[in-house]
Amino acid sequence: MTTSLKGKDVLQVEQLASEEIALIMDTAARFQGALQAGDRLMNMAGKVLATLFYEPSTRTRLSFEAAMLRLGGQVISVAEAKTSSSAAKGETLFDTGKMIESYCDVAVIRHPVVGSAQELAEGASIPVINGGDGAGQHPTQALLDLYTIRQEKGRVEGLTITLAGDLKNGRTVHSLSALLANFGVRFYFVAPQALAMPAEITASLRQRSIEIVETTDLARAVAESNVLYMTRVQKERFADPAEYARLKGAYVVDTKLVKSAKPGLTLMHPLPRVDEIQKQVDADPGAAYFRQAANGVPVRMALLALVAGRE
Amino acid sequence: MTTSLKGKDVLQVEQLASEEIALIMDTAARFQGALQAGDRLMNMAGKVLATLFYEPSTRTRLSFEAAMLRLGGQVISVAEAKTSSSAAKGETLFDTGKMIESYCDVAVIRHPVVGSAQELAEGASIPVINGGDGAGQHPTQALLDLYTIRQEKGRVEGLTITLAGDLKNGRTVHSLSALLANFGVRFYFVAPQALAMPAEITASLRQRSIEIVETTDLARAVAESNVLYMTRVQKERFADPAEYARLKGAYVVDTKLVKSAKPGLTLMHPLPRVDEIQKQVDADPGAAYFRQAANGVPVRMALLALVAGRE
Amino acid sequence: MTTSLKGKDVLQVEQLASEEIALIMDTAARFQGALQAGDRLMNMAGKVLATLFYEPSTRTRLSFEAAMLRLGGQVISVAEAKTSSSAAKGETLFDTGKMIESYCDVAVIRHPVVGSAQELAEGASIPVINGGDGAGQHPTQALLDLYTIRQEKGRVEGLTITLAGDLKNGRTVHSLSALLANFGVRFYFVAPQALAMPAEITASLRQRSIEIVETTDLARAVAESNVLYMTRVQKERFADPAEYARLKGAYVVDTKLVKSAKPGLTLMHPLPRVDEIQKQVDADPGAAYFRQAANGVPVRMALLALVAGRE
Repeated sequence: MTTSLKGKDVLQVEQLASEEIALIMDTAARFQGALQAGDRLMNMAGKVLATLFYEPSTRTRLSFEAAMLRLGGQVISVAEAKTSSSAAKGETLFDTGKMIESYCDVAVIRHPVVGSAQELAEGASIPVINGGDGAGQHPTQALLDLYTIRQEKGRVEGLTITLAGDLKNGRTVHSLSALLANFGVRFYFVAPQALAMPAEITASLRQRSIEIVETTDLARAVAESNVLYMTRVQKERFADPAEYARLKGAYVVDTKLVKSAKPGLTLMHPLPRVDEIQKQVDADPGAAYFRQAANGVPVRMALLALVAGRE
Repeated sequence: MTTSLKGKDVLQVEQLASEEIALIMDTAARFQGALQAGDRLMNMAGKVLATLFYEPSTRTRLSFEAAMLRLGGQVISVAEAKTSSSAAKGETLFDTGKMIESYCDVAVIRHPVVGSAQELAEGASIPVINGGDGAGQHPTQALLDLYTIRQEKGRVEGLTITLAGDLKNGRTVHSLSALLANFGVRFYFVAPQALAMPAEITASLRQRSIEIVETTDLARAVAESNVLYMTRVQKERFADPAEYARLKGAYVVDTKLVKSAKPGLTLMHPLPRVDEIQKQVDADPGAAYFRQAANGVPVRMALLALVAGRE
Repeated sequence: MTTSLKGKDVLQVEQLASEEIALIMDTAARFQGALQAGDRLMNMAGKVLATLFYEPSTRTRLSFEAAMLRLGGQVISVAEAKTSSSAAKGETLFDTGKMIESYCDVAVIRHPVVGSAQELAEGASIPVINGGDGAGQHPTQALLDLYTIRQEKGRVEGLTITLAGDLKNGRTVHSLSALLANFGVRFYFVAPQALAMPAEITASLRQRSIEIVETTDLARAVAESNVLYMTRVQKERFADPAEYARLKGAYVVDTKLVKSAKPGLTLMHPLPRVDEIQKQVDADPGAAYFRQAANGVPVRMALLALVAGRE
């Protein structure tokens, strides 16, 4: 049987089989080539995407919308759906799904509550893509991160990857670690004790025979890693401001850290960054975070075209 | 003379002659057929719609925008015009109309104040469509409701139609009853005393020889009706919370009520619903409210194409 | 060498050479002719514009978006970027520029802080157009104002132009006076003492041999002027409400003032107006402010097409 995502929802990375992941990666690479060649694509001509954002996320929304437009499609959008009349009046997401299916061909939802994308998908007969549901999943970010690693390193298998920063609350690193586990990588998890990767996630990864080193020492991890994936340590997570101030300094990537790293280190970050990666580091050839952000467009083009059966 | 809406504003249902209503219905049916056949329409290619929403209404805005895009047109939008700079600085809607006429070919306005659409239309030389003006009119909702009744019942003439819920404050039921009065229907108006249909509306309908039964007994009405059009009883309309709690229960459609209804009852609701129609009722073949919402797209396509002279 | 704006940012009027201004004017005139002829333009087909508005400006945003759509292009938009997740999380505009360059081909930014457009442009490799940066510049408004004067008067050289109202805080009049100084005009600056044109601007203009008369007497100025450019005197600029009330009355254009003016006076205003130009004046053949607003579309079409190399 041929692998296809036509008509499917994309709600969490665990639902994706290896062949489906490979299909997404290959399709994204093809679209990126077309973009670079200046080709005008019309795969989604006549199709409409709805972006329903119940919490703001400029980057995710704009990259989905750009992806749809680059495929010749069109977009309707609710940038601040929380204040929308329907949500304010107490409509269920199931009913919103019933509504939206007659307005568009694909929907992307971002919502602060875990499981929201699932509920919308149950109402809607059209494909629904999860653009981030609270502390739950952010599968399209994980897919563009995977794509970036493949592109920067030429492979994923056998790499040593450090995930650093707030590993407790970051849905990005949860989705990404689950996705990377398909590829036989080795992990360093670097976080303050209070923000360590949840035990159920490390347990689930180890059950899949993934080697994990947990440490609070970022310098030690990057000395052994091919990829450093930084995330932000958020002030509001700490009861004690002094504790925050101390830890914050421990998780800043500066030129000194980069010099002490394994040669060829690839630096990633889901952005926006504040000061956890210093601006001077941008000039390093391994600083891949802006290329990573740019990869959001071809990867989301691939997802949109695949679920619409228009790849 | 051939009936045409070209260049006309659509501000209230009373302005529409029978032939114009028929033209809208027929055009909508044609567009719905094209949508279902997967045809790509280009009637509005090169044209721009402006949606100016001074109060949020996700459903109305998105269905107009989807309609325009499905016709090959484009959209500019102010989703929260109340906070727009022009409105905040005290610009009149007349001046806004003068501005918008040079940016687009058709405009839809939603505004909390009665008469707003009229004021915008006076400034703008392009066609203006009223997307709901306060307690005033909501003509496009009434037209899609009429279209739904025709589609579900095959006819409108001679039907017995119950309008239930908050008949005092609901602009939807005001526009709809005025529109249905063209077709020789018979009405049940079912509402708590405090939320009864305004006397001037019932008087005006009776003057047009329309038979109306006013009652607070929903079960009695549905036993005699071909169509039940439910609306929401809003808590904030009641001074006494106990009174609200009592009445709310009296106007809930559940499977028991549906069983006691006249066979073949068509159930409608402008949506969003909260709990005035229970989810179990969705499975009933007469539950037409999601089809009704979907009909918003072809009916608005018809209106846009007709006023632009592109049907 | 052929004059070209391809790949350039448009951040302030001072950067524009005479040949570049002439190119913008000529391109705008050509596009306006095409719009009036009902031609469907496809210059920007396959291209995407991002409008990033960190403060609301309905008129500027919608006219840029309409301009892009009229050229066959597409738009992604952040209408209230101040509340966007990236800005709220503390992302720099430099980083936002790096992000946006992979989503679109041209960006327009409106921001309350002087220098913001410059910072975005430093991050982004694509052309950035300044849609107004705080008390700084608003070059596209100045260009459409210049276009309007050319169109209404047939020339700019040798005209006497009154700028009136709040000349201290109005970025529009700052950009416009600098732009007009290229054309050998003569100025009246009419403002309350507290809202006079900043001394560094008048000094800079006089250094360029521009004749300026500063006065508080509007009637005197219009008796000698070919063009009156009104702006709003904003209440919030005054500590003393009585002072505001007194001055406000002194700067109202009514039919009496128009009658006392030099014959053929052209009346302009960047809009929105509140009551500084009375509605009765709209009927005067010299009342050009709605035509001026309409000119925003062809002038912005010209800028978009020129920086994209698609004129």
